[in-house]
Amino acid sequence: MAESARHQFPLRVYYEDTDAGGIVYYANYLRFAERARSEMLRELGVESSRLMAEDGIALAVRRCAVDYIKPAVLDDALIVETEVTKIGGATLEALQIVRRDDDELVRIELKLGCMTLGGRAARLPEGVRERLGRNCN
Amino acid sequence: MAESARHQFPLRVYYEDTDAGGIVYYANYLRFAERARSEMLRELGVESSRLMAEDGIALAVRRCAVDYIKPAVLDDALIVETEVTKIGGATLEALQIVRRDDDELVRIELKLGCMTLGGRAARLPEGVRERLGRNCN
Amino acid sequence: MAESARHQFPLRVYYEDTDAGGIVYYANYLRFAERARSEMLRELGVESSRLMAEDGIALAVRRCAVDYIKPAVLDDALIVETEVTKIGGATLEALQIVRRDDDELVRIELKLGCMTLGGRAARLPEGVRERLGRNCN
Amino acid sequence: MAESARHQFPLRVYYEDTDAGGIVYYANYLRFAERARSEMLRELGVESSRLMAEDGIALAVRRCAVDYIKPAVLDDALIVETEVTKIGGATLEALQIVRRDDDELVRIELKLGCMTLGGRAARLPEGVRERLGRNCN
Repeated sequence: MAESARHQFPLRVYYEDTDAGGIVYYANYLRFAERARSEMLRELGVESSRLMAEDGIALAVRRCAVDYIKPAVLDDALIVETEVTKIGGATLEALQIVRRDDDELVRIELKLGCMTLGGRAARLPEGVRERLGRNCN
Repeated sequence: MAESARHQFPLRVYYEDTDAGGIVYYANYLRFAERARSEMLRELGVESSRLMAEDGIALAVRRCAVDYIKPAVLDDALIVETEVTKIGGATLEALQIVRRDDDELVRIELKLGCMTLGGRAARLPEGVRERLGRNCN
Repeated sequence: MAESARHQFPLRVYYEDTDAGGIVYYANYLRFAERARSEMLRELGVESSRLMAEDGIALAVRRCAVDYIKPAVLDDALIVETEVTKIGGATLEALQIVRRDDDELVRIELKLGCMTLGGRAARLPEGVRERLGRNCN
Repeated sequence: MAESARHQFPLRVYYEDTDAGGIVYYANYLRFAERARSEMLRELGVESSRLMAEDGIALAVRRCAVDYIKPAVLDDALIVETEVTKIGGATLEALQIVRRDDDELVRIELKLGCMTLGGRAARLPEGVRERLGRNCN
């Protein structure tokens, strides 16, 4: 997929995101990434709250690997790019890149699993799989 | 009540609590205060997760007024003092003070209400009222 | 000022904002409010990071009073309305309202003070006062 | 090193740590892990705020890989175990495990780098290396 076809989510860095080192606190890039995944799903017609209420399931992160390349700072305008790289019956994999203009700041590889609210693995609803598949390479 | 009779909750300031101004981010004192209230309740035999699971209720903050007097910084050892100042049938009021040694840093006055998970006001369970009452002045 | 003249800041509720009670965690409305104040200032040409770097000052919350009227939940689209209600030499006061459509969810009254990075009170830079004044009623 | 020789940091799960799915939000385990690393360093006589003020350096996470095995929930009493697995001139590696009793919930492998506040790589101060080395296997 061309880079331009990745889902793009813009965000701003506020005081809440930074720490006394003057940069964005390392855990907060995972918050940014989850916002981006939520918006990508919403644009595909999949809302987390409806998945919970109607299907009794949620997408949970099983594994993530995060490379911190350069720090973001207060007032930065960032973009989170999201690309679904693999879809299985109950799991999906994604690559997320946090950018500031042309600079790649943080790179996140994730594996997500579909779970019941009771915590057991569940199949991805067919509609979700199909819609994500159109976005997958 | 003598000051020494207030519930005392110690905590440490970590990077996650601070912001790029080099001080604790203003919203985070409310996180500290809620930890202290939870521990005070736990010592009285009241756990939030059991209140939710067994009684279907939660204590929600209805109103708070926060005075920021002096800032806390990274690595500070703080104490949150909690005093229940009033108990009603479905509400309670408390004063919480965040200290560093003898310095009063932040002062929080709260009104909490007992709510069902559906969001309606509910009476405080009798056992909770009675145990809190012993701590109230 | 007509309500429509208040600064409007839209935001979405994500998992990070919610808690196990199924609603937005009470401290997080202060994060939402600070984002809205930052964007209001940015639109007036005042960036927090530039205030720190160029003027050596920051706007710190001195006092806030928060009324929690109705809870927000996952996936809600919210608006934070901000109105500067008073401007002094070194302080300003504001009212912020978190809405979901026509529902007022949370109401925040704040007093902010201008501070040097060393923690002492400082006068608001004249340009900032003047630009905020045009927004004040 | 025997498991019992790993640094042990106890913590409690509060509402602030959980999300609407009823479990601890995935980014928050990184907050727990950083608290544990800070306390391990503090016990070795190394405080983050002193490193910044006196040496002008900070330890920043360069890479982390996180396995989410089982979720933690509200009121859980957790332990974060920390083991330094490798020390270089400017970097160190660590393994951190979040446990609830005998259950391994989250496993975090990290690479940290020593940085100047300006963002460039720096050597670990000799005293820090030496004290960490005694804890390394």
